[in-house]
Amino acid sequence: MGELFADIERNEEPAVLLFDSADPDYFLAHYDITTANAALVNSLPAGLTGFHPWIDIVVRLGKLRAVTISAIRGRARGAGSELVLASDIRFASRERAVLGQMEVGFGAIPGGGPAPWLPCVVGRGRGLEILLGGEDFDGELAERYGYVNRAIPDAEFESFVVRFARRVSTFDRQALADIKHFVNKVSLPADEEFPPQLDAFWQAAARPAFQGRHSKAFEDGFQQRSDVELRLGEYVGQLVERTQTAGVQEV
Amino acid sequence: MGELFADIERNEEPAVLLFDSADPDYFLAHYDITTANAALVNSLPAGLTGFHPWIDIVVRLGKLRAVTISAIRGRARGAGSELVLASDIRFASRERAVLGQMEVGFGAIPGGGPAPWLPCVVGRGRGLEILLGGEDFDGELAERYGYVNRAIPDAEFESFVVRFARRVSTFDRQALADIKHFVNKVSLPADEEFPPQLDAFWQAAARPAFQGRHSKAFEDGFQQRSDVELRLGEYVGQLVERTQTAGVQEV
Amino acid sequence: MGELFADIERNEEPAVLLFDSADPDYFLAHYDITTANAALVNSLPAGLTGFHPWIDIVVRLGKLRAVTISAIRGRARGAGSELVLASDIRFASRERAVLGQMEVGFGAIPGGGPAPWLPCVVGRGRGLEILLGGEDFDGELAERYGYVNRAIPDAEFESFVVRFARRVSTFDRQALADIKHFVNKVSLPADEEFPPQLDAFWQAAARPAFQGRHSKAFEDGFQQRSDVELRLGEYVGQLVERTQTAGVQEV
Repeated sequence: MGELFADIERNEEPAVLLFDSADPDYFLAHYDITTANAALVNSLPAGLTGFHPWIDIVVRLGKLRAVTISAIRGRARGAGSELVLASDIRFASRERAVLGQMEVGFGAIPGGGPAPWLPCVVGRGRGLEILLGGEDFDGELAERYGYVNRAIPDAEFESFVVRFARRVSTFDRQALADIKHFVNKVSLPADEEFPPQLDAFWQAAARPAFQGRHSKAFEDGFQQRSDVELRLGEYVGQLVERTQTAGVQEV
Repeated sequence: MGELFADIERNEEPAVLLFDSADPDYFLAHYDITTANAALVNSLPAGLTGFHPWIDIVVRLGKLRAVTISAIRGRARGAGSELVLASDIRFASRERAVLGQMEVGFGAIPGGGPAPWLPCVVGRGRGLEILLGGEDFDGELAERYGYVNRAIPDAEFESFVVRFARRVSTFDRQALADIKHFVNKVSLPADEEFPPQLDAFWQAAARPAFQGRHSKAFEDGFQQRSDVELRLGEYVGQLVERTQTAGVQEV
Repeated sequence: MGELFADIERNEEPAVLLFDSADPDYFLAHYDITTANAALVNSLPAGLTGFHPWIDIVVRLGKLRAVTISAIRGRARGAGSELVLASDIRFASRERAVLGQMEVGFGAIPGGGPAPWLPCVVGRGRGLEILLGGEDFDGELAERYGYVNRAIPDAEFESFVVRFARRVSTFDRQALADIKHFVNKVSLPADEEFPPQLDAFWQAAARPAFQGRHSKAFEDGFQQRSDVELRLGEYVGQLVERTQTAGVQEV
């Protein structure tokens, strides 16, 4: 993605970038915080902002000259939700989209900075509920909250999104860039909001409470094609009880 | 409430504070501006912020380490609406909740500062309508406007709210506090917004227009268990006409 | 309008200013950018802000002591949408209102500054969609997005709006002005946001891409009582194709 963004930043095209997923169940499940993935991420070249690669992506995404659209079918939780919040426009399949920030259920603040976007997308109260409750939001509720622009019946979803993206792609690139520039002037979160939230996430990830819950979740099927991942919002609400029953000690 | 907040500020618990009411008709009717109550409030010790006791409550509420949830059944007008706006999350009974800021109907700006919250909760236009129109909002309309997070059918209201509060209370306190901190950084009104609005309220309360309307309203059943209180939003729309008919002079 | 505003600014009345239209199809179609109109606008006396006359109107509208209500029946696109966004409160006929910012379809950023209002009215994502997509929003969708406060069934529209305006007009002018002052403190766009956006519009209007599309649209019925104006949102999505088919060259 960093390379794709660099290409757009150099060439000022394409006019529209549409994110979707080939997996019917997942748009983008969430961040992988295993040691293996940490090694992989650490080996990436530094992004243009100098921030951690994931923060680099969400910060650059908000400023990209292209119009960015997330077409959400399946689950977009954690980093998936952060990606769609950093996109300009969010369309969701009414029957199949699931959005959420489940990190609180593991004992952490989300690291990719949903907090700076949410008050200007869904308002302060609903933003606090999304982050403090850690629940799953289906397409219909996500639209009611403003978490997505619109929820479209799944049968019409692809044609709706493609039509909209094609339409915008016929428009003048300078006009699109001017519009985004002036909306960003009054609504883009400041870059410096993001790194302290990732730091707070790593601090949380080092706490025993997080590690106990995380181990138990991995044991139960977290980060695998499992029932736990399909209904992760519900699952994290039971995690403390499960962790305690399993005898994992919290300090 | 000041003592309860001080306790939470010292002890960092409980994790969740849930406001509800034992009265089926009223969550919190409104502020009592009789002389008797003024004497009572003036005898209270100064709050931690140094502001008037009611401003002290709403300002500290927004920053409290606990997650604060208002479970609104019955009427939450004036200071009741201000309390729920200063809460993190607002759930309403679809059939029984009524919210509103009726102060404008008496000739005053609300004193407890709903103006700084509303644009970031319901947007600028709907916020202006709530404050300038002074009408009652039922649960369904309050949800459509974003005045509450969600309106829940009354039959499921208690179980919904209790389930949500219990869920959040199992989460890690530091994670909850981190999330609230970072959302507050981008959406909490500045403390100094509040005192000038209370000053403007007291100035209004000293004007003859306010006093005439207020006297008439007391005469008609204001601040008593009466039809006037039950349908206060509608009543204040008739107040000028009633005041004039009653021969109360406005200067 | 400048004179009407000056009158209100001097006399502090009326308390309520209600904008509606006698034309069943149009609330305010859009700005007229023909040379003839430019000559007319240039002959107007400078407004109080020193800005271009249209920017002068929208900037003063937001600060006007009167409560301003747009009652939208028929089309409010471009400058029509800008007028309603600068109003305090927006009510729409559910069946007959159409709102939109179609400028992007001609190759321009809107010049009257909807960008500074939209994030605080509909949120960042929906604001970007309105401006980048350039589509028509009917009353029902405009309400779902928060683009209008409420969409009212057309049969009840007039009585709803008149009742609301009459109600507010009985309230104390100082209370209304105080409320607007404090909401403006936290949500009124800064004056200086507006002129650069009008500059960007004029720059766009001088580009060949804009001129080709504009000529073609005039040829097809733009700015006349025509099918093109009735369904302008849909039409601008076909404009590039029509321009190319017609052999108009874009550089």
